[in-house]
Amino acid sequence: MTIEELTARIRAFRDARDWRQFHNPKDMAVAIIAEAGELLQHFVWKTQEQSEQRAVEKLAEIREEIADVAILLFELADNIGVKLDEAMLDKLEKNERRYPADKARGSNAKYNEL
Amino acid sequence: MTIEELTARIRAFRDARDWRQFHNPKDMAVAIIAEAGELLQHFVWKTQEQSEQRAVEKLAEIREEIADVAILLFELADNIGVKLDEAMLDKLEKNERRYPADKARGSNAKYNEL
Amino acid sequence: MTIEELTARIRAFRDARDWRQFHNPKDMAVAIIAEAGELLQHFVWKTQEQSEQRAVEKLAEIREEIADVAILLFELADNIGVKLDEAMLDKLEKNERRYPADKARGSNAKYNEL
Amino acid sequence: MTIEELTARIRAFRDARDWRQFHNPKDMAVAIIAEAGELLQHFVWKTQEQSEQRAVEKLAEIREEIADVAILLFELADNIGVKLDEAMLDKLEKNERRYPADKARGSNAKYNEL
Repeated sequence: MTIEELTARIRAFRDARDWRQFHNPKDMAVAIIAEAGELLQHFVWKTQEQSEQRAVEKLAEIREEIADVAILLFELADNIGVKLDEAMLDKLEKNERRYPADKARGSNAKYNEL
Repeated sequence: MTIEELTARIRAFRDARDWRQFHNPKDMAVAIIAEAGELLQHFVWKTQEQSEQRAVEKLAEIREEIADVAILLFELADNIGVKLDEAMLDKLEKNERRYPADKARGSNAKYNEL
Repeated sequence: MTIEELTARIRAFRDARDWRQFHNPKDMAVAIIAEAGELLQHFVWKTQEQSEQRAVEKLAEIREEIADVAILLFELADNIGVKLDEAMLDKLEKNERRYPADKARGSNAKYNEL
Repeated sequence: MTIEELTARIRAFRDARDWRQFHNPKDMAVAIIAEAGELLQHFVWKTQEQSEQRAVEKLAEIREEIADVAILLFELADNIGVKLDEAMLDKLEKNERRYPADKARGSNAKYNEL
């Protein structure tokens, strides 16, 4: 399914409820971080290994938290005139320059600390 | 562009750097909320009206923050075996039941407070 | 009550449970943002006016979320050797230089945009 | 130094700038999570061990991020009529009931999963 098709579904859902009036960029960003917090809740105090197991045991809930963030993110992009797929491709290219494969391979350092 | 195509691009970028080893669910969720925080930074202390203007003035930066969150979110879904488009459609359906259009129209109340 | 007395109480609570082993700086910062997310949940989609009313109606819950963040923050500071009161006074002084009262009065602009 | 003394300093700083008008509960909670995100940035992709080292190397910056969260948290509590020290003591007592020392010792499980 394309991002554009999903975005059209989100827009239809929102407009049937006349919610565009509440969906200014600030409140979208606030809702996004609140949902990202619910996603994170699953992993608080867990080790990295335990988090793999958690993702299996609580898959249905985690799947829903991911969807919540995504739905908001797709709409925010659309509302401010950003084509999400193009923005993602542009950022991947930027990251390719920031993190040359031969330099970044196997390292978890930030680009400015490589 | 489809979510699956974008996800394949993200996977290729990651694997060229041998980063899968760092991308456990916990650290993905941590990175997602950290990027969501960078997005939110643009709107701190702003009124809702000012946030519309900010989204115009700082569009390039905000577009990049949105892309950062999206890239991580697509990969997390993929890593734990979630089809993001299906998860989003399922959640939209659940929200349609939670927020019947005639009851939710023009209201910013939560479904359990409608 | 002093910050030092409260910190001693938090330390005693933690050590009676042998939890210091889990309280590395990263996991403390993760727990802090997760609790900050629970605090924020109360205000998602609300207008600024509605948030005042919410703080009255849900005071007991919001009080508890604030306490959760504070308990973690006091302990993190202590764990890494930071005197929280001194750190706060130093930051207030820095903010006094960044935001001269005559320039910042009545403005919600960031110091680099004043 | 007492929480009350620090809160008085924060109040004086704010009122000299006439900023109370911007400090509704929602915008305080938004600022708190944005600052918690800056704190978290230091630890993204780090292992738990690396985070200890990071806290030493970047102590000055991390100390400042902790202070930023604390200043906002003390003010939010004050603005909505919460005595922060009492709220913290009450929450510690609640946690003592939720996490009996003999049951919770050495475990990173949540109280409802102990």
